[in-house]
Amino acid sequence: MPRQVDHDERRREIAAAVLRLVTTRGVEAASLRSVAAEAGVSMGAVQHYFTTKDEMLLFALAHGNTLLAERGTRLAAERKPGTPRETFRLFCTLLLPLDDDSRTAARLWAGLISRACIDEPTRTLAAMAYANLTDFVVRQLRDALPGTDPTQAARHLVSVIEGLRWPLLFGVYTEQHAMDILDAQLDLIF
Amino acid sequence: MPRQVDHDERRREIAAAVLRLVTTRGVEAASLRSVAAEAGVSMGAVQHYFTTKDEMLLFALAHGNTLLAERGTRLAAERKPGTPRETFRLFCTLLLPLDDDSRTAARLWAGLISRACIDEPTRTLAAMAYANLTDFVVRQLRDALPGTDPTQAARHLVSVIEGLRWPLLFGVYTEQHAMDILDAQLDLIF
Repeated sequence: MPRQVDHDERRREIAAAVLRLVTTRGVEAASLRSVAAEAGVSMGAVQHYFTTKDEMLLFALAHGNTLLAERGTRLAAERKPGTPRETFRLFCTLLLPLDDDSRTAARLWAGLISRACIDEPTRTLAAMAYANLTDFVVRQLRDALPGTDPTQAARHLVSVIEGLRWPLLFGVYTEQHAMDILDAQLDLIF
Repeated sequence: MPRQVDHDERRREIAAAVLRLVTTRGVEAASLRSVAAEAGVSMGAVQHYFTTKDEMLLFALAHGNTLLAERGTRLAAERKPGTPRETFRLFCTLLLPLDDDSRTAARLWAGLISRACIDEPTRTLAAMAYANLTDFVVRQLRDALPGTDPTQAARHLVSVIEGLRWPLLFGVYTEQHAMDILDAQLDLIF
């Protein structure tokens, strides 16, 4: 029986393979077979680590988000934002599809949303992902603005970030448009 | 050669068949074959009216949106909103997935977004749909608030409505949450 650290490491390797496939060939290409080939493991091994394709996709998305959060922490340490608002703005920016990593995350998310519309377990997972994102923003806002109830502000901000995703990804809105809207939204909060 | 009115009517009948399929079996079920069966026409007839599956899906979405807009006009005539803000709020509400028709439209949209991430022609169509929606909101706001440039406000509002779609559809946010956020957004504009 493998140690837990190996188990987690193997799941992350498979998630990285999923992200590579999604980037190059779209979320539909991330079948058990092609993920196994990309990760250099057997299909049985993939199935050992992930019960369903949706679980694999959602873990890959979460893994991508973890990488983004780590990047946020690194960037925050480098750039030393002077105010809670600037720190928070940096994290929001990382959630928008403005570079390759976050565009990959957006593509994965599009595939999951589409599946969630016709498949009940995927809907449950997608709902959980939205609830987790909202809770994360609530906690961040509570740290930045002690003594307030930031729940509605968090939902509002999550909606704006979510809604900017596709017009940005498809080139309808520019990065400047998105940042102007994000700043208008932060003006409401801070 | 059929008259134009027959051509348009036939396209709408096929679009209605697409919407019925998407509601009951998901966007993936809307193949040329199943749409032809649902509409009671031949596959050749569907291909006569729509060159690609994406064109058919986007026309069905536009058709659904036209039905929603007609419903908005009817509701506005019935309810007689007293202010431009109330009229505008009514239209925004219809864009949110709060009843069967708008939930169907949201499911179709999810399918198109997902395809747009891996297919260039679909991306072009999706980009056009976002640009059209934004232009529509710009025109509405310009009528409601003459003398202002509502472009950024329109993009911001479109982002909020887009971003509320999935948490609402998946039951993470309630209708009341969505209306509170919409009202906060309208406070920014009016």
